[in-house]
Parts: sequence; structure tokens; C-alpha cells
Amino acid sequence: MSFDRLIEKIAEKRNPTVAGLDPRIEYLPEGMLARHTAQKGETLEAAAGAFLEFNRGLMDALADIVPAVKLQSACYEALGPAGLQTLKESAEYASGLGLYVIIDAKRGDIGSTAESYSAAYLGRVKVGNTEHMAFPCDALTVNPYLGSDNLNEFLKDCDKYGKAVFVLCKTSNKSSSEVQELMAGDRPLYRVIADQIDRAGAKRTGEYGYSSAGVVVGATQPAHLRELRERYPALFFLVPGYGAQGGAAADIAGAFDKRGRGAVVNNSRGLMCAWQKANTADYTAAAREAALFMRDAIRVYVTIQ
Amino acid sequence: MSFDRLIEKIAEKRNPTVAGLDPRIEYLPEGMLARHTAQKGETLEAAAGAFLEFNRGLMDALADIVPAVKLQSACYEALGPAGLQTLKESAEYASGLGLYVIIDAKRGDIGSTAESYSAAYLGRVKVGNTEHMAFPCDALTVNPYLGSDNLNEFLKDCDKYGKAVFVLCKTSNKSSSEVQELMAGDRPLYRVIADQIDRAGAKRTGEYGYSSAGVVVGATQPAHLRELRERYPALFFLVPGYGAQGGAAADIAGAFDKRGRGAVVNNSRGLMCAWQKANTADYTAAAREAALFMRDAIRVYVTIQ
Repeated sequence: MSFDRLIEKIAEKRNPTVAGLDPRIEYLPEGMLARHTAQKGETLEAAAGAFLEFNRGLMDALADIVPAVKLQSACYEALGPAGLQTLKESAEYASGLGLYVIIDAKRGDIGSTAESYSAAYLGRVKVGNTEHMAFPCDALTVNPYLGSDNLNEFLKDCDKYGKAVFVLCKTSNKSSSEVQELMAGDRPLYRVIADQIDRAGAKRTGEYGYSSAGVVVGATQPAHLRELRERYPALFFLVPGYGAQGGAAADIAGAFDKRGRGAVVNNSRGLMCAWQKANTADYTAAAREAALFMRDAIRVYVTIQ
Repeated sequence: MSFDRLIEKIAEKRNPTVAGLDPRIEYLPEGMLARHTAQKGETLEAAAGAFLEFNRGLMDALADIVPAVKLQSACYEALGPAGLQTLKESAEYASGLGLYVIIDAKRGDIGSTAESYSAAYLGRVKVGNTEHMAFPCDALTVNPYLGSDNLNEFLKDCDKYGKAVFVLCKTSNKSSSEVQELMAGDRPLYRVIADQIDRAGAKRTGEYGYSSAGVVVGATQPAHLRELRERYPALFFLVPGYGAQGGAAADIAGAFDKRGRGAVVNNSRGLMCAWQKANTADYTAAAREAALFMRDAIRVYVTIQ
């Protein structure tokens, strides 16, 4: 239930890193796309095939180091239906390796539509008497702008299927302050949102005290991480923005509780593109090395019990 | 540019209705799903095939009455990659019939990711030297929670390819007030958002005075429609919630300017499920009748020049 399985996987590997699988054509190692376009032409299907090969290579290389992967839906949607097939197969491959799977789709809509989104990612879709999982994952990112009738649809499936959500609270991009830091009465908007999520999760806490309604808080905001950690002991954090977006190990230390729990930290480009920085063709070895380096850098600041 | 093509299509048909194509299994006329499951079993592919047949029937029936269709992404995502194939083919089929195509996906992310979303729906995706359109449409709905570096990525493609966006402002669901009506200083949040969109669209107005950055304002909020119409003459409105969600023709009159321009009004269930209400097996005839009824009801209140 809730984030318990994620917390246990983190403890097992003593590593709160999520490997972000956000492939782009320019991230692919030399020759990988060409092998697929040689067979399928310069098509979206060829690119989707290359993305799947790239992802599998990364997951094989990282599965004994990281507890989780995060798949950024936009990167797959950019390749049309074939890209979504790669999203689905990547999620299934990750589960097969024992990795916790987060799909980062930031969905949000009116209640009846949110129900469809939730069914697609966290729940089941019924055709006749047969139940299907369209895009199976363990946790989904959700946008809070539409209020509780959106969030509640996702939480219903979290309860039913042991899944979880990360609701956008304070994001890692520069312009996030334009909306999220507006003062609503005595609190900035991201605090109002955090309060709403905290209430929604109140009866949904798991074995370690964290509820199935988590939040996204950017690594570029160390002060916010500390503030929110202290104020909301039941909110589990997804912390994006490590590395490429500017956050570093010291900055994210405040996201964790005294037992080293309470957060996962995403790194996408730092792992996927490690081969470029290391100037090597062996992208899996480069990703492993970067993941070990990040794990050890975090361990300097965070002791996971 | 901007919403000019939509405005012209509306004027041509003297009808500001968008037919919402948000298929669900329970909306399909009797026997339609069974014909597909007979061939493909109770699979997501069978359901996706039935959705495409249903959509094509509706579009054939409505193309001479309505100027536009809106495809709710959630309904297609619920069927996995096969569902997304139906989304793409439905969008292409609509374009072939001369309909303006809105994809309702409410996307929003940090800048670099928003760029991928925008490429998928409004722009182009390059594989080698070949450009592709992953999910081609004329306009996309966008979520404002991440601020301007999200919106700007979409607007760049709007400028480049003559597309447009509808940014969520005041939505039609019950809980929308929990976030959107929070007071930020002297204004509710949805007004702050409207101001931001208005500024972003300032240099992007088309021939009829409307910019390519439009907004979503629910039909269930007649007072908000009037208020925002007066305050923001350059913001084009997408008005959901007509019919099934409680809005009616009199309620949406305030969304239009003196020339009967400035808004499109979505109706999904009222058209898709007209056959159920009329208790007939002929879903296309029932949809036509419902669409003509809605058009004429709106014409009582709105004179389109």
C-alpha cells in the first residue's frame, strides 16, 4: 500500500535514486538509431524501436543500483502511437526487473475524465469481461489545478490496487513561482496545494507513515524541501531536477526524514547522457558509473535505515 | 494564424459548437463492440477499433453541421497504444472532412519537456531528415500550473505552424473553486492566470482580434463567462460543460462578443449518446438531430456575423 514498496526497495539498495528514462533522439548512442532506420526508414516506429533498445540497456545496467525508474510521457508521445507502445513495454520491462515504475504524465481533468486517466495508468480497463492494464505503473504524477474531484479519482484506484500518486506542488522550473508562489491568504499556493494533498492522504498512510498521495518538489528549491519535509511528515516527495537542472546532493538532503526516508530523487540526463560526458561509446557502463557516483554522493548526506 | 481558421469555420456554419469525441465503451451503440471483439477478442485493440468506427460515423454525420471536433485524450489513453492510434486516425479523419481539430490533453510540464509535448501535438518531430506529426491537431488544451516556460514552448509552435492553445482558466467541475478561486491578492487565481495568458498572447492576435493563446472557461459558470469576455477581448474561449455537465444555451451567451465571436462550446455526451436518449439504434441520425437542436438553441441567444 501507498509508497511502502518503494520505501522498501530504496532501503534494500540504500539508494533513493530514480533513473529518469526520458529518451530523446540526441541522447541515443552513435549508431543506435541508424540500425533501426536501416530497417524501418526514418519513421517514428524506427525511433520508438531505438528508444526501447536504449531503455532496456539502461535498465539492465541500473537494475541492481537504483530502486525505481521514471518514464516521462512527453518523450514517448512525441513518437505517436509507436512511442506509447515503447512507454508501455518499457514500464513492463522495468517491472520484470523488480523496479518500481513511475509514469510522469502530470495528468489532471474533471472527475469523469480523471477516472479514465486513472484507469489507464493505475487501474483497469474492462472490455467485455476482460480486464486490461493500458499503461501499468506503480505511481503516476498528477496536476492539482482542477481540485479534489480530479485527485480523488486517482486515489480511489490507489486504494484499490495499492498504487500511489505524486501531485505537483513546487516544481523545479524557473517560472514555477509565477503560479505556485502566489500568496493565497497567508500561504503561497504550493502550501495550499500541499495542505489539500495532506488532507486527502490522511486516511491513506502506510506502514512507514507515508500516505499514497505524495508530492513533486524540485531539487532546485532546497529551502522548500526542508520546509515541506518538516511541515508534512506524511507526504512522500518525488524530487526532480537533480544534476542537469541544477540541484545537487547537498541540496536534496532536506527532503529526507531522520531515518533517511521520505523522498526519491530523479536523475534523467545525468544517467542517460553519461556516455556523452565521459566521451565513451559504452552508454551502459557510463550510466552505471554515474548512478553509483550519485548514490554515493547522496549517502554522504542521507543515511537510509 | 491564431484562431482565425476556427472563427471562419464557425461563421461558415453559423454554429459555434464543438462535437466532443470522448468515446467510452458504454456509449457505443449495440453490437458495435461485439463486431470488433468477434475478430480480435476482448482486447484493447478491439475496443480501439470500435471507437474509431464510432467516431467516423459521428464525424460523417456532423461534418456539415459543426465546425470542429474535440478529442478527449483520456478516453484513448485508457485503451493503451491502440487507443492512441485511434486518437491519431480520428484527428486525421476530422481534418480530411475539413473540421478544426482540438485535442484535449491538458498537458503541462517544465520547459524542455513541454517542448516535446508541443512537438507531439502542434509541431514536428524529426527522425533523421524526415519530419513527422505524431498527433496532428489545430489546437491543444494546456495546464497553467507550471507557469510561462511551459506555455511559451507551445506558443512557439503556434507561431511557427499557425496553431493555437486553450489554457485551463476556470474549469467546469465542482471542485475547480478549491484552487482556481483562491484569492491571490485582489484577484482570484483564475483571473491571475487569465492575465498571464492575455499578456502571452498580446503580440499574437489574428485578423479578428483574438490571440492564439485562448482559455478554457466552463459553461457551468455563466457569471465567469461574462466577466472574462468583457475583461479580455483578445482571449478566445473553449467552453466545456454544455448539456451533460449542466450548462445550457442561455448560460453560454455571455461568452460571445457583439459579433457572435469569441467562443466555441463543446458538447460530448449530448451528441455521442443522443441515440440512448432518443431510444434509437441509429446513432448518427440521433447525433445530427441533437447537433441541430443545440445549434438552433444557441442561435436564439447568439447572432454570428
